[in-house]
Amino acid sequence: MSDSDKPKKPQLIQPRTLKGFRDYLPESMIPRERLIQIAREVYRSFGFSPIDTPTLEYLEILTGKGSDETDRQLYKFQDHGKRDVGMRFDLTVPLARFVAQHINELGTPFKRYHIAPVWRGENTQRGRYREFMQCDFDTIGTLSVAADIETGLVINALLSAIGFERFTIHINNRQVLNGLLEKQGLSEQATPVLRSLDKLAKTGEDKVVAEMIATAGTTEEQARSVLTMATLEGTDQEILTQLKPLVRGSELGEAGVERLEQILAGLQSGGVPSERIKLDVSIARGLDYYTGAIFETFLDDLPNIGSVCSGGRYDNLAELYTKRQLPGIGASLGLDRLLAAMEELNMITKVKTPADVLVTYFDKGSLGKYLEIAASLRTAGIKVELYPDTKKLGQQLKYADARGFDYAIIAGEDELSRDALQIKDLKTGQSTEHLIANAATELAAIIKKADSH
Amino acid sequence: MSDSDKPKKPQLIQPRTLKGFRDYLPESMIPRERLIQIAREVYRSFGFSPIDTPTLEYLEILTGKGSDETDRQLYKFQDHGKRDVGMRFDLTVPLARFVAQHINELGTPFKRYHIAPVWRGENTQRGRYREFMQCDFDTIGTLSVAADIETGLVINALLSAIGFERFTIHINNRQVLNGLLEKQGLSEQATPVLRSLDKLAKTGEDKVVAEMIATAGTTEEQARSVLTMATLEGTDQEILTQLKPLVRGSELGEAGVERLEQILAGLQSGGVPSERIKLDVSIARGLDYYTGAIFETFLDDLPNIGSVCSGGRYDNLAELYTKRQLPGIGASLGLDRLLAAMEELNMITKVKTPADVLVTYFDKGSLGKYLEIAASLRTAGIKVELYPDTKKLGQQLKYADARGFDYAIIAGEDELSRDALQIKDLKTGQSTEHLIANAATELAAIIKKADSH
Repeated sequence: MSDSDKPKKPQLIQPRTLKGFRDYLPESMIPRERLIQIAREVYRSFGFSPIDTPTLEYLEILTGKGSDETDRQLYKFQDHGKRDVGMRFDLTVPLARFVAQHINELGTPFKRYHIAPVWRGENTQRGRYREFMQCDFDTIGTLSVAADIETGLVINALLSAIGFERFTIHINNRQVLNGLLEKQGLSEQATPVLRSLDKLAKTGEDKVVAEMIATAGTTEEQARSVLTMATLEGTDQEILTQLKPLVRGSELGEAGVERLEQILAGLQSGGVPSERIKLDVSIARGLDYYTGAIFETFLDDLPNIGSVCSGGRYDNLAELYTKRQLPGIGASLGLDRLLAAMEELNMITKVKTPADVLVTYFDKGSLGKYLEIAASLRTAGIKVELYPDTKKLGQQLKYADARGFDYAIIAGEDELSRDALQIKDLKTGQSTEHLIANAATELAAIIKKADSH
Repeated sequence: MSDSDKPKKPQLIQPRTLKGFRDYLPESMIPRERLIQIAREVYRSFGFSPIDTPTLEYLEILTGKGSDETDRQLYKFQDHGKRDVGMRFDLTVPLARFVAQHINELGTPFKRYHIAPVWRGENTQRGRYREFMQCDFDTIGTLSVAADIETGLVINALLSAIGFERFTIHINNRQVLNGLLEKQGLSEQATPVLRSLDKLAKTGEDKVVAEMIATAGTTEEQARSVLTMATLEGTDQEILTQLKPLVRGSELGEAGVERLEQILAGLQSGGVPSERIKLDVSIARGLDYYTGAIFETFLDDLPNIGSVCSGGRYDNLAELYTKRQLPGIGASLGLDRLLAAMEELNMITKVKTPADVLVTYFDKGSLGKYLEIAASLRTAGIKVELYPDTKKLGQQLKYADARGFDYAIIAGEDELSRDALQIKDLKTGQSTEHLIANAATELAAIIKKADSH
């Protein structure tokens, strides 16, 4: 090819994102960052520490315990050193590996939070994303009911801090169900029994009983006793009263009920309003893994979106990686689900800027003055954007509106000759004149007053 | 294999991380999160908005402009849909793709920050990591000097907020160098000239001149004039005075010097102490890409670790993905380098907990009381961990020491019978008794007083 044949400009590459992956523009990233920051602050207020782990792990670490489905969804490849590696698909497997590796240095109880993306090659037709944020907290190395109670306290604090008032934390204890199964001689058949029980809402009691008899080989009486427990209703106290005879004689079941009582009492001591707590014997959260207290959280105004914060107690976090038995308890805040709910409930003010004020710029010779004004506002804790170009005032105000600024500072030759500026409230359209020397204090007061409304 | 042959427990998987990847334990993650949070707050205070982009991009997006070296280092593979994908190796290429894709919705000026990990299959023998955090801010869609000035203001605000007082922001303008080359008729040979110039510190003036003559085909006079400029010394004003005659006659060069003067004046108006600013004609930051103002930032106490915050102005961010010309300016905070420097300068207090206070727990019957105390402290803004097990007080205090708590709350039967508790200052070892009803307010005051020291 001769030089003259070479195209001067290569063809444009189409700018696009992969299916199942998302760009976050400011409008969606600002509420996201707010939520993540609130989660951090709440976790810290209970003494949970931040950790982070690598995005890539040895494949054998990730596939150790995974189901066939997680294995299929794993993003995996060979790295430059021909190692088989994969991108983490949750934060629990990396936590298990992390704790097994560092437990001597970490000590127990070890309380950590971890807020980070995970990847799964999901079927996007189900509306799933292939990259999403997880937001987990766990307490490792203690069997104490204090840690169970704290899990509920953290959930209450998280949702309250985000701005929810009407939500219900559903609580159960796997020990109770396991105790009943033990008492009925069904411990060995727990898996098929629970699998049938899971269909209760869909198929009704009689079909579930029939299935338990057919697939788990229970008697009708055994099946009915499991159903009796799973369908208990009433106040927490009423349910506890009905539970006790059902598990009597099973050490596990009795201990489970006692622990539920302690958890409910502890949540009250810790300040959770009683209407936010519900003992719910119908939740099991999957067949394996969880062995004690279980939590699910529903928004009273949007129960159908499912649990927005779930978790529970497990006996042995890191059994694949260490002989040391590490019990723990934790839960995970469902960021995407919460953000969708907040949008639906109009809890999110749509803005495209994190700043409070736009300083307009329409006199090139006064740039130094505008820079001084912006700096003095920032010193007073006000977030300020200085418009970079000397466009017409109308254009700059249109920009301020589109971005969602609350205020604009306007200082033309006129105002500057009086050492003054105007603060324009972009919601009301009203302007007030202030001396530059006082503007920072006065605007800070205006913003504070507006925020408190 | 018969059932009895099945191993009861599979062999343990060795818990380990991949070479070049790091776990962050609380002790290192707490200062990291603090730094990132400061960066967020500073960026926001100037009106930069957060965005995020996917970890994985179409390979063609990532390799569009990359050098052979970045291509070699790319983590790339085929996804489940047989698409060629890669993990982002910086935040600039994704920004270019993002802006090209969304510019109509974003509008200009578009100011964004992006704090996220990137991946490069680097040679770890050079002490490099394969996963590291980038922390970038950019203003897209304006040529205004106000944006150049602001870049320096943000750098000053970032380092001040982190806690540095002694640092120097080196500033140059590529237009000045390009203007001189233009005036000398060396525009076409810019690349070999600059490549030779880069060796100045290593080989000395005469060798550089010889190389320019040999590889770029300059005359001795041309080479000397480039060297004269690159070695100018003195105050910013003295350098400006010497620069002017060197670029006289080159429109680009004269404009470049004028712009440097505006930037220096603007930084002063914006409140940057003059000792933190240094006009430095020797910095070029690579041969391509940057076309205007350039910034590098050095810690006065550790200059040898290199620049901790660098960036500059570019003419056309997204030319591979859109016909629209998008000039901009931005810089990047070097998180890892800064954290290493802070450690070396003893600016980091080593703690393994983000909480202020450990509430000890040594009477099972009083758990409700401890939960109430912890809740009341949290309401006062105090970060509280409740020890979950009723171990001996000595063991709990040892734990508090190891974790780095400042205070412990001790309330045995004795204190509780008086509705009181003890606040133990773990640094001095002194305890004071407080009524439970007053403890939150009084401890908040104690913490505030200690923090202000």
